[in-house]
Amino acid sequence: MITKFIAPEIIFGENALRQTGESFVRLGAQNILVVSDRGVEEAGWTEKVIHSLEESSLSYAEYFESITNPTIAEVEKGAEFSRENECDAVLGIGGGSALDVAKSIAILISNGGRIEEYEGVDRIHSPLPPTIMVSTTSGSGSEVSQFAIIVDPDKKKKMTIVSKSLVPDIAIIDPYTLMTKDSMLTAATGLDVLTHAIESYVSVAATPLTDVQAVNAMKLTERYLRPSVASRTNLEAKKAMAMASMQAGLAFSNAILGAVHAMSHAIGGHYELSHGEINSILLPHVMEFNLIAKPERFAAIGEILQAEAAGSDHVSKGRAAIQAVRMLADDIGAPKTLRDAGLRKPDYERMAEIAIDDACMVTNPRDVSLEDIEQLLRNAY
Amino acid sequence: MITKFIAPEIIFGENALRQTGESFVRLGAQNILVVSDRGVEEAGWTEKVIHSLEESSLSYAEYFESITNPTIAEVEKGAEFSRENECDAVLGIGGGSALDVAKSIAILISNGGRIEEYEGVDRIHSPLPPTIMVSTTSGSGSEVSQFAIIVDPDKKKKMTIVSKSLVPDIAIIDPYTLMTKDSMLTAATGLDVLTHAIESYVSVAATPLTDVQAVNAMKLTERYLRPSVASRTNLEAKKAMAMASMQAGLAFSNAILGAVHAMSHAIGGHYELSHGEINSILLPHVMEFNLIAKPERFAAIGEILQAEAAGSDHVSKGRAAIQAVRMLADDIGAPKTLRDAGLRKPDYERMAEIAIDDACMVTNPRDVSLEDIEQLLRNAY
Repeated sequence: MITKFIAPEIIFGENALRQTGESFVRLGAQNILVVSDRGVEEAGWTEKVIHSLEESSLSYAEYFESITNPTIAEVEKGAEFSRENECDAVLGIGGGSALDVAKSIAILISNGGRIEEYEGVDRIHSPLPPTIMVSTTSGSGSEVSQFAIIVDPDKKKKMTIVSKSLVPDIAIIDPYTLMTKDSMLTAATGLDVLTHAIESYVSVAATPLTDVQAVNAMKLTERYLRPSVASRTNLEAKKAMAMASMQAGLAFSNAILGAVHAMSHAIGGHYELSHGEINSILLPHVMEFNLIAKPERFAAIGEILQAEAAGSDHVSKGRAAIQAVRMLADDIGAPKTLRDAGLRKPDYERMAEIAIDDACMVTNPRDVSLEDIEQLLRNAY
Repeated sequence: MITKFIAPEIIFGENALRQTGESFVRLGAQNILVVSDRGVEEAGWTEKVIHSLEESSLSYAEYFESITNPTIAEVEKGAEFSRENECDAVLGIGGGSALDVAKSIAILISNGGRIEEYEGVDRIHSPLPPTIMVSTTSGSGSEVSQFAIIVDPDKKKKMTIVSKSLVPDIAIIDPYTLMTKDSMLTAATGLDVLTHAIESYVSVAATPLTDVQAVNAMKLTERYLRPSVASRTNLEAKKAMAMASMQAGLAFSNAILGAVHAMSHAIGGHYELSHGEINSILLPHVMEFNLIAKPERFAAIGEILQAEAAGSDHVSKGRAAIQAVRMLADDIGAPKTLRDAGLRKPDYERMAEIAIDDACMVTNPRDVSLEDIEQLLRNAY
């Protein structure tokens, strides 16, 4: 079997975002498209990054992405804006949405055409312009991943674009940015990190290189997510969760994900709900379903999460892992059902049809039928 | 603190070297400088890689690097050869020596000047041509690292060149290539892997990202180096050691090394000896010296190496780690002293002077004096 692994250059630490300007200079860029969202702008992080560009005598043009689940239109407007401003490089700053828009705009800048043409695996033919992604939410892992997720509103689905070209040149992760997140967002994005780590660890495409990242992300989340939700100013916890997010990102970028994300993409294409919350609700249900596919892996997760098992066999330890995930979600006040998360009158059948074709379903460790998905959604509602 | 981490794209697995041609096509290369050594050529691996280039309709020119510790002259001849043949990309195939020559030639192709100008950290100003490194010895980690080591025969020292630009675009690791290594080379390169993992794990520049790689490399080496030395055809052991080598390479590329390598570079500049053997001889002596600097890290190494400690405190566990390293070297028949390795009439004073200025000494966890180095060399003789 051939294992492939790809990662961007990573700059991680307090005030790392001050290095954005000099990093673009190193990449030979001159006029930067800055893709940001209003929340990050209001928190003052966009200004800090722009200050760094100015210090390096770079010019720039700002484009704001403003919705939770960005659409094709958002990307097309951004590409048009970039052309008007003759940008030669792309900076994304924010959570997964802003970064995915930034990456998708970068595709159109050098490849042209419509973003729908790049849905699926390895459809990008020309190298992207220099890209730097500054992550401020510690959840999506988009700053290190080969993925971009964009909503197709006509088809009411999330398109998954997967390509090595989407790994940015440089990922900048500054744990200070996590101090402006509220506890709800910290909880949702933290459980998204755990979902990334667990799905990539049990993925059929897991490798020793993704395993070490996934295991460490789980350990850090087990230890630091609760204190990170509890306090905005606990820098030790913020640093640990930023590291966990990045490591989980490296794991899933290379091992891909599973049924949680396939279903979550289907739901997110239909309803304007939090990706992290949906994942965290689906996670224990999918773990229960997947347990028989890889009992030894779920047992290992139980040990990593310090779960107390009723027996010493793999299945008992795996069940304890699921219980540990539920307890963690409970402790940090995450919603328990899709209904709690705001889902109304779900069309189970349609969502199952979309989920089963999602790129993330391919690597789920257990075979999944339409009926399985509908049942999982009903269980989680 | 700011943590930086950089890795090439990695293609790992049986027959991975068949992907060399298509990988160069992906990088936009057309005429490849192939840097190889005679041993790899004789084992048939160079031919296989060239076949892959031909299948992708690429042209190429072959340059053979032929000595254990390559010199400035080797690099200059290669750069001249590349210019004559108008190569636009560089392939290194072999052990650390061939790869370091390939990387150094790539520096001169796009940066010009003399290779000595690039000694030290971050002295390379222009991007390198596309580079792919195919590792066949599972030891040096050069296929994933920011390092190139070249001998300056006038100064009788190994120059250390460190730059992000030296991380190749793509690293290809094919465990089949390890099946043509004899047991002596397998032992020496395997202990070099352990040295990389241990030195980067106790380095003052270690980070969570380098730690996960170093820890896994130690675990794999503890479990698989003995069976890998015992049998040329144990593919499971070869795969594990190839993975260990690569992970240790990622660790030391980003956390740098310590006194073992600083001293080993000084010795290797003076005498034509095996780098892996020298490292393995120096390693337990330097561990004893460094133990008081980071007892908790050495205790962790003891646990990873499954060492039985006399007490439960960090220092006892750390001492057990040193004992475990000695036992491993003993079991696989590695030389125990520098005298055994062929060192004759060592000039301790001169070597200490060179070692103390080596780039690797900066990250050693314990302060080192000239007298300390001389004493360590005497102990290891």
